[in-house]
Amino acid sequence: MFSPSTPTPTSSLSLPIDAQGFNVALTEAQNGRTEGGIPIGSALFTRAGVQLGAGHNMRVQRGSPTLHAEIAALEAAGRQSANVYRDSTLYTTLSPCSMCSGAILLYGIPRVVIGENTTLVGEEDLLRCRGVEVVVLGDARCQNLMSDFIKEHPEIWYEDIGKPTA
Amino acid sequence: MFSPSTPTPTSSLSLPIDAQGFNVALTEAQNGRTEGGIPIGSALFTRAGVQLGAGHNMRVQRGSPTLHAEIAALEAAGRQSANVYRDSTLYTTLSPCSMCSGAILLYGIPRVVIGENTTLVGEEDLLRCRGVEVVVLGDARCQNLMSDFIKEHPEIWYEDIGKPTA
Ligand SMILES: [Ca+2]
Ligand SMILES: [Ca+2]
Ligand SMILES: [Zn+2]
Ligand SMILES: [Zn+2]
Repeated sequence: MFSPSTPTPTSSLSLPIDAQGFNVALTEAQNGRTEGGIPIGSALFTRAGVQLGAGHNMRVQRGSPTLHAEIAALEAAGRQSANVYRDSTLYTTLSPCSMCSGAILLYGIPRVVIGENTTLVGEEDLLRCRGVEVVVLGDARCQNLMSDFIKEHPEIWYEDIGKPTA
Repeated sequence: MFSPSTPTPTSSLSLPIDAQGFNVALTEAQNGRTEGGIPIGSALFTRAGVQLGAGHNMRVQRGSPTLHAEIAALEAAGRQSANVYRDSTLYTTLSPCSMCSGAILLYGIPRVVIGENTTLVGEEDLLRCRGVEVVVLGDARCQNLMSDFIKEHPEIWYEDIGKPTA
């Protein structure tokens, strides 16, 4: 039951454009699944709600070890000035790995909205300690996309995060 | 004068293949300059001396915000298993930014050989504290490539490292 003293859960979307941005990322993840790829999606939006770029993991589709969803979204956004990044939010269906977190830090992206972090906890602590706002939604659709994929293709998933297969 | 008690300077190449790996990275940087791009090059080698991939920064040539030299080298190497990365060295002409350092951490690359870190000190401390061996060569050719480029195109350089132009 709502009470004014209830703290805002970190799972709440706090900006009006967050539902839109997150949905684009989720649709990207679903497109990745349809293509037979790792179902992780991402999108970069300005704070005002303009979509700059979106993409999904392309390891399977393009044999790419660097086109994680977040990198694909940044690549789709193309060359941008620092001021654009510094007024943007990156949406991603899964907690960002060290490469993607590093890209967030490189460009000074101040805010990251994450679908879920039960499959993997990326570099959320590093992001927070460098001043990035990190919102985790705990979205079951994102979790299910990943758990289904990992059940079918564990070796592709471990390759994507640089872990030896057990 | 050599004495047994002299500590090995961090500027020395410590593996027999380092000269070869570093030269590939330097040639990539020079190719980037010839193309009118940001002159940073990189190469990924196995410890045994097999070249896995090489590349250079493609911001200007392909309008890419994510194909830093190190990412281009990893992309050229294609999909690799964790065991391959964990027995490799990444050569780069410039100290790696947070994105490229994050990629090194993602794939568990244990060793990075850096041409110079006077133009930029990337995430060397983070790499070291995560157990990555970091060797800095202080190579004047790498420094000159960058200082010449930055004199001509400061705005492209600042864009590449996510900094607002002054
Ligand atoms: Ca990914
Ligand atoms: Ca670069
Ligand atoms: Zn990633
Ligand atoms: Zn970089």
